[in-house]
Amino acid sequence: MNQPIYADYAATTPTDSRVVETMKPYQTKTFGNPSSIHSFGCESSDAIGKATDTVAKFINSKLEEIVYTSCGTESNNLAVIGVAKANKNRGKHIITSAIEHPSILNACRALEKEGWEITYLPVTTGGLIEVSELKKALKKETVLVSIHLANSEIGVIQDIAALAKITKDFGVYFHTDACQAATFLDLDVQELGVDLLTFNGSKMYGPKGVAVLYVRKGTQIFPILYGGGQQQSLRSGTENVPGIIGLAKACEIVTKQRIADGKRVGALRDSLQNDLEKLPGVSINCVKSPRLPNHLSITLDETKVTNLVKAFDQQGIAVSSGSACSSKSLSDSHVLQSIGLSSEQIHKTVRVSLGRQNSDSDIVAIAKTAATV
Amino acid sequence: MNQPIYADYAATTPTDSRVVETMKPYQTKTFGNPSSIHSFGCESSDAIGKATDTVAKFINSKLEEIVYTSCGTESNNLAVIGVAKANKNRGKHIITSAIEHPSILNACRALEKEGWEITYLPVTTGGLIEVSELKKALKKETVLVSIHLANSEIGVIQDIAALAKITKDFGVYFHTDACQAATFLDLDVQELGVDLLTFNGSKMYGPKGVAVLYVRKGTQIFPILYGGGQQQSLRSGTENVPGIIGLAKACEIVTKQRIADGKRVGALRDSLQNDLEKLPGVSINCVKSPRLPNHLSITLDETKVTNLVKAFDQQGIAVSSGSACSSKSLSDSHVLQSIGLSSEQIHKTVRVSLGRQNSDSDIVAIAKTAATV
Repeated sequence: MNQPIYADYAATTPTDSRVVETMKPYQTKTFGNPSSIHSFGCESSDAIGKATDTVAKFINSKLEEIVYTSCGTESNNLAVIGVAKANKNRGKHIITSAIEHPSILNACRALEKEGWEITYLPVTTGGLIEVSELKKALKKETVLVSIHLANSEIGVIQDIAALAKITKDFGVYFHTDACQAATFLDLDVQELGVDLLTFNGSKMYGPKGVAVLYVRKGTQIFPILYGGGQQQSLRSGTENVPGIIGLAKACEIVTKQRIADGKRVGALRDSLQNDLEKLPGVSINCVKSPRLPNHLSITLDETKVTNLVKAFDQQGIAVSSGSACSSKSLSDSHVLQSIGLSSEQIHKTVRVSLGRQNSDSDIVAIAKTAATV
Repeated sequence: MNQPIYADYAATTPTDSRVVETMKPYQTKTFGNPSSIHSFGCESSDAIGKATDTVAKFINSKLEEIVYTSCGTESNNLAVIGVAKANKNRGKHIITSAIEHPSILNACRALEKEGWEITYLPVTTGGLIEVSELKKALKKETVLVSIHLANSEIGVIQDIAALAKITKDFGVYFHTDACQAATFLDLDVQELGVDLLTFNGSKMYGPKGVAVLYVRKGTQIFPILYGGGQQQSLRSGTENVPGIIGLAKACEIVTKQRIADGKRVGALRDSLQNDLEKLPGVSINCVKSPRLPNHLSITLDETKVTNLVKAFDQQGIAVSSGSACSSKSLSDSHVLQSIGLSSEQIHKTVRVSLGRQNSDSDIVAIAKTAATV
């Protein structure tokens, strides 16, 4: 078999070897509990401070607005459930979209069981959430709007600045899940105008097991984990020092490489898209919408997608036939349903998501394999 | 300054360099999302399977009874809140002890706000929870008893097998927080007779940011995080593959070294205790109770403990004057209060907790420094 080609960066990214190296001393040498007041503890605490400086710069926030969690799921749950619990006296209505990550949708469903009303905004066939729909949904009981910056399955980018402005004008908190967007889009929370923002290491060449929830100063939010009161009591549990250090390094690398990476990977994607569009019975989803530069959602006409996935597999090409955000779920994708695909079409859809390690020859191999099916 | 001496292993342990090396390939090479069905995903999924085999053997459980979380705090919260939510129709009473970790106590306090009744069992001056007290507290509304295996501040080991047996006979679930105990005590869940057990990487020379909640098959428990339904829906979020691999390696190392480590470190501790007991105005807490072999809780009579901590600090000796489980909290330790120490005595108490990297010369240096104050 050929050298395997990974083209599923939307599912997860490898950890950059520079990140791994940066973490190492904080695993074996500077390993103190940052809450300890001796030198080992202070070194860890200082290291977190420096890392947080980098992380805060990455999203243009204040240091004290950064909360470290264990993953995107936890950050999203903390945003939705934490804001809900702290603001339930103001109202019990949340607005989200029909195409969010399961960690948003299922947190909302858990709140529904506790008497909350949730509005799931529809999307256009291009996968876009319209400002007019959000305007219609906002009401005096609304306490939170949570809409992701970019979608993992279709790569579509929402106009968060516009959606957040409407929400802010209405006096309601706005959260965005930016996990999928972190390597390619600017996460400046001031430009986006958001009150809460999630991003995680595992989607940006950082470490697994660490994520951020940005919480704008003054936002009313309760914790969802209880304990020793770390991180201003918003997230108890001894801080994962090497994870935080590694995440900061990943932020630093993305800051340096984002624009160049986006151009290079975007050119590869455009070239692949061009090749695939020439094949009979191939259509690219949401092609007219703003999309992440590394992303292709492809629906096939006649050919069974399992053949294509099998052919890719035989060539050692890893793409996704699902979102991989749900545990090996074979049910129809809620995202593809929302953009109007039929069940049959959903089963004929694959996602190619490129990344830092892909080269021209990978694109040739992917296009060639697709052409054989 | 001399080479620093770390004697605060109860606050956190360094990650063993063998653990760091074992994790590395799963950060940069075998990095797939274990929910992905391509080869990268399957390799990660297989690796988790093998790791879980080791972890399950470590506590003598079935594979499907292992749930991975991000830290001891999360595991403890999942045990307490997850069992509470799933069993609230049976009753709304939980029994714990007055000397648990803040992640148990504060999870219980959160439940109190939702109408739960919590019994906080007292302890003897030796730090022991008595079976008779537990018997008195159990009632038909009780759904969970949560008592830790060993205490971080006083090192006292509870008779979990006896406490769990009473509880089981009463038809109530039993959870134990075994984080402090994992390097020195056998965590065999069958011998202990527990339904739920917490342990974490950061207290057993494993990675930070990963922990286990053992959940005996058949235990009614709800998740506290919502998302993609990973880990049988009990803990959503893409699994932290390198963390899990590293934790398994840490389990493997502890399995091999536990008895020898306990003997060696126990001899160092006994020697230090012997030296310290000769000093005027020094008393060792809970000295007659079963204690972890690495642990010393020392209360000074006349001398201000800040002088001792300062002297230790000047010699580069890291000990704890608090639990370091609460974020730089200066409030009186609830554990030391519970064993009957006055506020003044609490402020004159230090904890020395030894570990794998301590040597004879460390003990000499610690005893010598203590003698100068």
